[in-house]
Amino acid sequence: MSDIQFIRNLIIETPSVPGNFAKVAAAIGELKGDIGDIQTIKVGTLSTIRDISIQCQSEEHLHTIVQAINAIGNGIHVHAVTDDVLQAHEGGKIQMKSRFEIRSLGDLRRAYTPGVANVCKVIQEDPEQAKYFTGISNTVAIVTDGTAILGLGNIGPVAGMPVMEGKSVLFDQFAGISGIPILLNTSDPDEVVATVKHIHQSFGGILLEDIGSPHCFEIEERLKAELDIPVMHDDQHGTAVVTLASVLNACKQTDVELSQSVVGQIGLGAAGLAISRMLMAYGVKEMCGVDRNPDAIERMKKHGGTILNSIEELMETCDIVIATTGVEGLIKPEMVREGQIILALSNPNAEIKPEVALKAGAAYAADGRQVNNVLGFPGIFRGALNAQAKEITYPMLIGAALAIVDSTKPGDLVPHPLDPNVHANVAIAVERIANEGK
Amino acid sequence: MSDIQFIRNLIIETPSVPGNFAKVAAAIGELKGDIGDIQTIKVGTLSTIRDISIQCQSEEHLHTIVQAINAIGNGIHVHAVTDDVLQAHEGGKIQMKSRFEIRSLGDLRRAYTPGVANVCKVIQEDPEQAKYFTGISNTVAIVTDGTAILGLGNIGPVAGMPVMEGKSVLFDQFAGISGIPILLNTSDPDEVVATVKHIHQSFGGILLEDIGSPHCFEIEERLKAELDIPVMHDDQHGTAVVTLASVLNACKQTDVELSQSVVGQIGLGAAGLAISRMLMAYGVKEMCGVDRNPDAIERMKKHGGTILNSIEELMETCDIVIATTGVEGLIKPEMVREGQIILALSNPNAEIKPEVALKAGAAYAADGRQVNNVLGFPGIFRGALNAQAKEITYPMLIGAALAIVDSTKPGDLVPHPLDPNVHANVAIAVERIANEGK
Repeated sequence: MSDIQFIRNLIIETPSVPGNFAKVAAAIGELKGDIGDIQTIKVGTLSTIRDISIQCQSEEHLHTIVQAINAIGNGIHVHAVTDDVLQAHEGGKIQMKSRFEIRSLGDLRRAYTPGVANVCKVIQEDPEQAKYFTGISNTVAIVTDGTAILGLGNIGPVAGMPVMEGKSVLFDQFAGISGIPILLNTSDPDEVVATVKHIHQSFGGILLEDIGSPHCFEIEERLKAELDIPVMHDDQHGTAVVTLASVLNACKQTDVELSQSVVGQIGLGAAGLAISRMLMAYGVKEMCGVDRNPDAIERMKKHGGTILNSIEELMETCDIVIATTGVEGLIKPEMVREGQIILALSNPNAEIKPEVALKAGAAYAADGRQVNNVLGFPGIFRGALNAQAKEITYPMLIGAALAIVDSTKPGDLVPHPLDPNVHANVAIAVERIANEGK
Repeated sequence: MSDIQFIRNLIIETPSVPGNFAKVAAAIGELKGDIGDIQTIKVGTLSTIRDISIQCQSEEHLHTIVQAINAIGNGIHVHAVTDDVLQAHEGGKIQMKSRFEIRSLGDLRRAYTPGVANVCKVIQEDPEQAKYFTGISNTVAIVTDGTAILGLGNIGPVAGMPVMEGKSVLFDQFAGISGIPILLNTSDPDEVVATVKHIHQSFGGILLEDIGSPHCFEIEERLKAELDIPVMHDDQHGTAVVTLASVLNACKQTDVELSQSVVGQIGLGAAGLAISRMLMAYGVKEMCGVDRNPDAIERMKKHGGTILNSIEELMETCDIVIATTGVEGLIKPEMVREGQIILALSNPNAEIKPEVALKAGAAYAADGRQVNNVLGFPGIFRGALNAQAKEITYPMLIGAALAIVDSTKPGDLVPHPLDPNVHANVAIAVERIANEGK
């Protein structure tokens, strides 16, 4: 009970009556909670919501304080208890902002009526002008149905919103792209495709995000076929780009030629299948895989992969092994072959710990902590939008992976994700290849 | 040919080859165009796009210069000729921005993986927490099908985008709301309703904008009935709020009691019908209207209005007349009754000019130049979102109109739209009434 470093923030609503806040402060003080910073989150007509930082002794102590505050009555109410992660999310992480300030009626008449009518007419006469006089071509929808949010599964799109806002933050910071979260209340491919088609003119591209398997495959394929703007499911192809870059860097460090190697993919879900397809597109001649799901096996065969009978067979056969199963410790040390490259990418617990794999004879081993999609999607879309590409192709994605490799410091698996050069290099590579393909 | 004040901006793309820009400058100089400011809009891998300000003698002179630049070849190309209004729209007027900067891996881990997973779980366990830890409840979709953009008609949603971005600018500046343009490629009520329903969880409210009549009625009614967030068609109810405020101010200045007056509405389209309904909701006992469209007449009757046979009859019968027909000069001076209040709101050309109406005996006359929706919708949605209202009701809208009246300087028809007090007052009134209605 002597640990006085337990700090949490309470989000408290107090009806706008003088003295109400003092009652809250008194309740906290009586229980020996120590009040720190106080931020006013919302001043409404009837009530005020504040974020009050409280230092207390323990989770239990905090709980007692929360109960005491809720017991005051008068409509005083603790809405939530937050920590620094939750605090960073208060009010959401993104906001649509005007790019200039309206300071005069003249500004208003330029940005809004009547001036705006002329801009509309210019676009009506030549729809191409929308590229210059609207933000459409710099805007990407971040579309999810909430069925595969991180490792949390089907928690719904609203609970997944912090991830979508996070993607939007990264789009803004690393690529200057306006990322718009679109939360779908349906997972039915017909409905998803119809909905995205009906709204697609608002955007220059579509990032599909955290959509579960197998419906993610049909949704992405149909949208790619039917829309004339870039569509990419990040959990498939964004992950595959960063994985290809990681594999290439591992090969570099062990003096292995990727295209001459036999590569094995353990787990053929959305990520695993996409990684396999990416490696085959890169030029890997023999791409093997295992999965327990017969549909996943069929998909792998359809795309030209070889199915092996067991993890043991795969570990015996392959020079390079990638695992994306989510199953901790699936790869046993005794399965590891001398000189193998092993990327066990499941987060937070890898299929085999790098140190265990290395001790068992692997030439190179890594887990998934650094293999972060943030290295890919911002630059990929920046490049595709710059080139006004109608789709994102394998050559563009492989170009992105090679740009990530070129941006990696010697000895590292991937570049530092906050290095702005990575994102610029990816964008330039993707734009160049998109333009060459025209 | 001596007018040297003709200034336009050329948006010119030049492939990234040394000397290309000099060729452009030379072509302009040879034709005696005077180059002013040059802004680089986009530096791509293969080409650069610049905005070059050129002072020339005339439209014709400008045209010659544009032709000369396009004749250079080498891929040099004039994309567009802009003026200051177009310039204000370059690249679009809005952008989704991160609310904080990611400066470290710690920031990245808080805003994105792995920290964000905890925020998702908090919302999964208690969906109400999305109000605090996402921006959803501060975000409003600005939805259009592009069928009734300003007075331009059915020019399509992409050509209407500058208006939607304008609304988003005003949401940001006057109410701190994140406004997201959603362009629909369908006007079919079933498809529009299904689409908006499928994406509505992304937003705290829906502003319907520039959707044509009659499908706007069905779309708004169905969305209001089926969604538990505020839905408002601005061209109907936003316009009606500002019109009610204008009428009340006109009554104040002429010492007329609105609820005791006979009011006539000329033109029963989306705006005219909504104004009639708003006035009846306010308490006007006898609300008359004329229109040539039998469906519009039926709708007016359904909502309790009285149909008159002609504009002449309406002008004879009514103490207060409002016109929203788009037909310039429709009201003849000889129709004006002594002491009448006349608001001829069609833009840019009123049904009767205020000075003509006053000369013909009107006690008060105004046209629509000041009756701008910007006075209404930002504060209305701010108040509704603050109150977490599930709908926007007539009492809330009438409260908004009264707040606009209270914010008007004596002698004015409406407040100055850039006066921040108006928007705050509207928000407070709407929030208070929404909370009273709970």
